[in-house]
Amino acid sequence: MNISNESIVKDLTILREKNPLVHNITNYVVMNFTANILLASGASPVMAHAIEEVEDMVSIASALVINIGTLSPPWVESMIKAGKAAAKKGIPVILDPVGVGATPYRTDTAKKIIDECDITVIRGNASEILSLRDSSAGSKGVDSMHSIDTAENAAVAMANELNITVAVTGDIDLVTDGTGIVRIQNGHPLMGKVTGTGCSASAITAAFAAINDDALAATAAALTCFGIAGELASKHAEGPGTFTTALIDALYNLSTDDINRLASITIQERRDI
Amino acid sequence: MNISNESIVKDLTILREKNPLVHNITNYVVMNFTANILLASGASPVMAHAIEEVEDMVSIASALVINIGTLSPPWVESMIKAGKAAAKKGIPVILDPVGVGATPYRTDTAKKIIDECDITVIRGNASEILSLRDSSAGSKGVDSMHSIDTAENAAVAMANELNITVAVTGDIDLVTDGTGIVRIQNGHPLMGKVTGTGCSASAITAAFAAINDDALAATAAALTCFGIAGELASKHAEGPGTFTTALIDALYNLSTDDINRLASITIQERRDI
Amino acid sequence: MNISNESIVKDLTILREKNPLVHNITNYVVMNFTANILLASGASPVMAHAIEEVEDMVSIASALVINIGTLSPPWVESMIKAGKAAAKKGIPVILDPVGVGATPYRTDTAKKIIDECDITVIRGNASEILSLRDSSAGSKGVDSMHSIDTAENAAVAMANELNITVAVTGDIDLVTDGTGIVRIQNGHPLMGKVTGTGCSASAITAAFAAINDDALAATAAALTCFGIAGELASKHAEGPGTFTTALIDALYNLSTDDINRLASITIQERRDI
Repeated sequence: MNISNESIVKDLTILREKNPLVHNITNYVVMNFTANILLASGASPVMAHAIEEVEDMVSIASALVINIGTLSPPWVESMIKAGKAAAKKGIPVILDPVGVGATPYRTDTAKKIIDECDITVIRGNASEILSLRDSSAGSKGVDSMHSIDTAENAAVAMANELNITVAVTGDIDLVTDGTGIVRIQNGHPLMGKVTGTGCSASAITAAFAAINDDALAATAAALTCFGIAGELASKHAEGPGTFTTALIDALYNLSTDDINRLASITIQERRDI
Repeated sequence: MNISNESIVKDLTILREKNPLVHNITNYVVMNFTANILLASGASPVMAHAIEEVEDMVSIASALVINIGTLSPPWVESMIKAGKAAAKKGIPVILDPVGVGATPYRTDTAKKIIDECDITVIRGNASEILSLRDSSAGSKGVDSMHSIDTAENAAVAMANELNITVAVTGDIDLVTDGTGIVRIQNGHPLMGKVTGTGCSASAITAAFAAINDDALAATAAALTCFGIAGELASKHAEGPGTFTTALIDALYNLSTDDINRLASITIQERRDI
Repeated sequence: MNISNESIVKDLTILREKNPLVHNITNYVVMNFTANILLASGASPVMAHAIEEVEDMVSIASALVINIGTLSPPWVESMIKAGKAAAKKGIPVILDPVGVGATPYRTDTAKKIIDECDITVIRGNASEILSLRDSSAGSKGVDSMHSIDTAENAAVAMANELNITVAVTGDIDLVTDGTGIVRIQNGHPLMGKVTGTGCSASAITAAFAAINDDALAATAAALTCFGIAGELASKHAEGPGTFTTALIDALYNLSTDDINRLASITIQERRDI
C-alpha cells in the first residue's frame, strides 16, 4: 500500500493546488459546516440537489458526496441520478449512510443507492456499517452504539463484496479495501461532541479522492489529516464550541510538520475473508 | 413544586448519564446550532422529517421537538404524524411556534398542530404566545414585540385550557402549568443577537423533559441551565460570534457549582385564572 | 453621488435604530450564518419559503433577498411570487444568482427571476455576473474564475439595461447603477475561505437598502461595512474558523471611528456604455 506520511503530505499539497470541485448532496444539518471544512481542506464545495441540475453539476465536479442524513424521496431520486452520472464520468462517489439502522427507510435507501450507483467509498460509524450488513444491528439515531472492532469483519466483507473502500470512523478509524486495513489513531473525543464531524469526514474523503485515484490511500490520508486537525484544535478548545472553530483553523493551517509529527497509522494485510 | 437548585442539578446529571435521543423536526436555519446545543447538554440529537420515517424515528426517541420556523405542507404533515406517534408512545412533545402571528399560515399551522397532537410544552417568545390566543396580537417576523409580562395571562390561560406547560422566553423566562409560575432571571442580552437561541431553548427543554416527567420542572431546569450558560458565555464574548461558541462551551462544561452560584428562579402559585 | 464616510455612518446608524425586517428566501447552506450576519448588522432576519406565506411575509418586511444557492422548482415559484409582491409593495429586492453559469438550470432560473420580478440590486461574483450576460462565460460551481475588472463592462451594461444596481464582489467590490461606479477596497482574503460570505453580502445589502432608497449608496455602504468588519476580524483570526466568529463580532461592534479610519472607496462616473 502506498500510504505513508509522505503520501499524505503529497495528497494534501495536490488538493490545495488543484482545489477540486466537490459536489455534495447532503443533509441540512451539516451543509454549512461541511462546506467550511471543504474550503479549509483546499477543496471548492458546491451543494445542489435539484433533479433539474444534479447531472450538470456532476459534469463539472471532481467528486460527489451522497449523504442521507435528512433524506426524503425527491432528494433520494437526485442522489441516485447524480451517482449514476458520476460513475459514468468516472469521478469518485462517497456515500455517507447517516443513521442507517435507525429506521427502515434509511436502511432501504442506503442499500438502494449502493445497488444502483457505483460507490467508491462508504464511510460511516460502526453501527451504520454493521446495519448495512445486518438490519438487526440497531443504531441510536445517528450516533454509534458499537465499537470499531465489532465492525471490522463487516467492513472487510463489504469492501470485498462491493469492490469498494469502506471506512469506519470512531475513536480509531479503520479503512479497508477488503485486503488492506489501515487504522488511524488520530482524532480527539470532542469530535464526537460536534454535529457533522462524521459527515465532514466523508466530505474531506471526497476531496482527497478527487485528486488521488487510490481510494484506500485517499481515504486514509483524508481521515489522518482530519484527525490531526482535531488533535491540534483540542489545544485551543474550552469545549465543543471553540473546538469547532479551532478545527476549521487547524485544517486550514495543517502543515507538513504537523503530519510528520502526529500521523499515527498502522497498516495490515488481511486475506481471510 | 419540585424545583430547586438541587432538582436542576439532578436533572442535568441524569440527562448527561442517559444521553436521551431527541428527535427534531425543526427549521433549516437552526438545525446545526440546535444539534450542537443538544450534544453540549448531554442529549443525542437526530433530525428526520420524511413522512416515510418519522414514526419509526419517534419509536426510538425519548422526546420530540416540532418547530415551524421554515414550515411547508409536507413538513407540517410529518410534524403531525410524528406528534401523534409521540403521544401514542407517551414521550414528551415540545412545540416551538416560530413566527406565529407573522403570517396566517404560521398561526393556522400552529393551532392545527396543537389541535391534532398531544403537546407537552409550548415554548415561544411573548408575541408568539400572545398570537396563539389572539391573532391580532402581531409579531415582527420571528422576533418579539411584546414583554414577558404582557404574555403572562395568555400563557397561564393556555396552560390551563390545554393542560400543558407553557414557556415564554425573553429577558426573563416564565414557565407555567396553569397554576404554578416559575420565573427565571438567568440569561444574557446577547442571546437575542444569535439566531436560534429560542429554538435551542425548545430543544434543550425536550432533552430535560425526556428524563423528567414533571414538564414544569423539566422546562424550568432546561431554561435555567441555558440561561446560566448564557451568562457564563458572556464573560468570554466580544460580540454575538464569540458568544455563540462560548455558549456551547459553557453548556457543555456547566457544573453543579455554576448552578448553585447563579440559578435565579422565583416560584409563584396562581389560582385566579 | 451621495456616498461618503458620513453617509455610510448615517446608514448604519439608521439601520441599527430601525431594525428592519429582512425576508430571505435563501439557500440551506448559509441560512444560519446569514441570519447571524443580519442580526449583527442591526436588521431582523426572517426565513420563509412556503408559497402559502411568502406574500404575507413580504407584506410585513422592509426588504427581500432572493438567493438561488440550493434552488428547486417549488422554491423558485415562491421566489417569484415573493419578488412580485415586494415590487408591488415597493420594497427593495436583492437577487443573489449563486452559481449562475455552473448549470443551465441556475442560469435559466436567474434570468427568469430577473424577467418576472422587479429587482433592485443584483450581487454576485465576477463569474456569476459575466454568466448572466454570456452563458458561455463559465463558473466553477459557486466560486469565481474571473477577476472583477473583466466583469466591469457586463455589470455596467446590465445596470443600464435593467435600470438596477449591480454589485460584483471579490478582492475589490464594484457597485454600479450604470453610470456611477463605486469601488470598495475593503475586505480580507479569508472572506473567500468562509462559505456564505457572498450570500451574507447580499443580505446585508438588503438591510441597508431597507433604510436607504438610493440603492447604489445603500449597496456601497453595506459592502464597505462588511469589508471593514472583515479587516477587523482578521486581526483576531487564526484561520477561517475564528475569522467567522470574529467577523460577526466585528460587524456587531462596528463604530463610526472604524468606518472613518478604514473605509476605502473610490467613485467614478462612466458614460460610455
